[in-house]
Amino acid sequence: MKLILDLDTGIDDALAIAYTAGQTEAELIGITTSFGNVTVDTAVRNSINILDLVGKKDVPVYRGAAHPWEKESYEPGEVVYQIHGRNGIGNVDLGEARREPEEMEAADYIIEMANTYGKNLTLVTTAPLTNLANAIRKNKEAIDKIGKIVTMGGALTVPGNITPYAEANIYADACAAKYVFESGIPIVLVGLDVTMKTLITKKDIQSWEEADSKASKAITDMAVYYYTNELDYTEIGGAMHDPLAVDAAIHPDVIKNILPINLTVETEGITKGRIIGDMKLLNEKKKSCLVCVDVDSDTFIKRFTAAVRKVIA
Amino acid sequence: MKLILDLDTGIDDALAIAYTAGQTEAELIGITTSFGNVTVDTAVRNSINILDLVGKKDVPVYRGAAHPWEKESYEPGEVVYQIHGRNGIGNVDLGEARREPEEMEAADYIIEMANTYGKNLTLVTTAPLTNLANAIRKNKEAIDKIGKIVTMGGALTVPGNITPYAEANIYADACAAKYVFESGIPIVLVGLDVTMKTLITKKDIQSWEEADSKASKAITDMAVYYYTNELDYTEIGGAMHDPLAVDAAIHPDVIKNILPINLTVETEGITKGRIIGDMKLLNEKKKSCLVCVDVDSDTFIKRFTAAVRKVIA
Repeated sequence: MKLILDLDTGIDDALAIAYTAGQTEAELIGITTSFGNVTVDTAVRNSINILDLVGKKDVPVYRGAAHPWEKESYEPGEVVYQIHGRNGIGNVDLGEARREPEEMEAADYIIEMANTYGKNLTLVTTAPLTNLANAIRKNKEAIDKIGKIVTMGGALTVPGNITPYAEANIYADACAAKYVFESGIPIVLVGLDVTMKTLITKKDIQSWEEADSKASKAITDMAVYYYTNELDYTEIGGAMHDPLAVDAAIHPDVIKNILPINLTVETEGITKGRIIGDMKLLNEKKKSCLVCVDVDSDTFIKRFTAAVRKVIA
Repeated sequence: MKLILDLDTGIDDALAIAYTAGQTEAELIGITTSFGNVTVDTAVRNSINILDLVGKKDVPVYRGAAHPWEKESYEPGEVVYQIHGRNGIGNVDLGEARREPEEMEAADYIIEMANTYGKNLTLVTTAPLTNLANAIRKNKEAIDKIGKIVTMGGALTVPGNITPYAEANIYADACAAKYVFESGIPIVLVGLDVTMKTLITKKDIQSWEEADSKASKAITDMAVYYYTNELDYTEIGGAMHDPLAVDAAIHPDVIKNILPINLTVETEGITKGRIIGDMKLLNEKKKSCLVCVDVDSDTFIKRFTAAVRKVIA
């Protein structure tokens, strides 16, 4: 399986890179980036730095969307800074990136890889859906060839995180998300319905500290920052949103209950970014989204923490 | 199986009575009533008249809540009048009721039957949850003995009907609904997620006209009224909300996908009446609600229309 990660590289995106780096079932062929937890430029820098940190210096990074469809610029909000730190990786200093991103634009790269690998390609998005929406708008036929698209985003059966109605990735570009869901392209949706069930604890993080490496120290510090700042919300630990999307892509058995549905997204008012069943398509037999609603969190957390431990040793 | 229907007797409640009247697997032992589609007094009158119409003159009717917990009175809104008619049964004139309701209050009757029949009792509510909430508040231990509670209400994965966020039964007494869901009493929830998939068509209604009886004429006229007025919303037919709850109680196999979840209800603001996963209980293994999210609508509609055809012949 060839894997592309589409990231807005904050802390749990960084952990998703670390997790993917250790997988033998999936080959990480590239990272595309967008605004979200950070600006797109910071997402590029963080992605390159984390790849280098976990020994993946050859994986190319592509710059993507700098702002949502309906805006001309983007700056992360205070809540995002609080959870991911000013630099997106818990204020851990990894310096400037030692290489440049590729010249090709993110959406074009996704299209090219879709045409090259088709069914063998898996795309995992853990960012606003702008890059994917751009790719579909440019060449839907190519995107339709992708074997599997797994998206971290949305909250269907539970409250949102950025508002009581919306999850942050969908909220950040609700118009692009609506476009993606209404395109009919099949999406496996890993939203707060399941990610809020996969919480990392202090004990899990401590198991990473044992290795005395630069990677171990950096990843552990990021995780502690994230864990500490998410605690207000979960009271138990830090939700592993983005790593779970990777796990669901590589080990689909981790998902224990799936709801097939055609979705739309609200793009205005106080419920902006709310995902909900599309009434126009309620009685369509074909459902484009598979919303994950239950997960084997113990298996995931064990597999994820063990894989990261190995990569940072 | 002993069955109690808790109704706010509008048109689809009336159809639920007609459907239940023809069942051999379930014995309708009583009807409790509340405000909702109509005032509680109209619900009493309509329930008695429909029971008499379908040959169930011995089934007792109990008067219940006249208004939601947070209000002192209740009057149906214009949208409700539009869908169910001024008298709740599509302006079909069945005259005054020929008998009185029982003296016992609805919640007390539910408690008494719970103590009498325990596991053999099924309660189907298709009204605001006020009577059930009152019964739980009075004697939770008794209600816990009931074999199965099936509630028509809510919209978890689809938009609401009374607002984009809320289904009418939950909206009508959001505080009582919140109390019921947070009580931990097990509930099978038949909401818009499935009822909007079970639409009755003109052809289905025409099959009822063949019998030349008073019941046939009255039931057909109600159904046509409902069908015509719901059409604006569904564009296909009239959603059989309340009869589906009865079917799910008697023939649980009709439900094709179920989501176990602990629910809460929003009681304020523009999203008042929205049901949503309770984050405090997200990681509890025990889930008190089973939300129906897929249904075999063909089997249901055939079984339902055939049963009603037989009862009104």
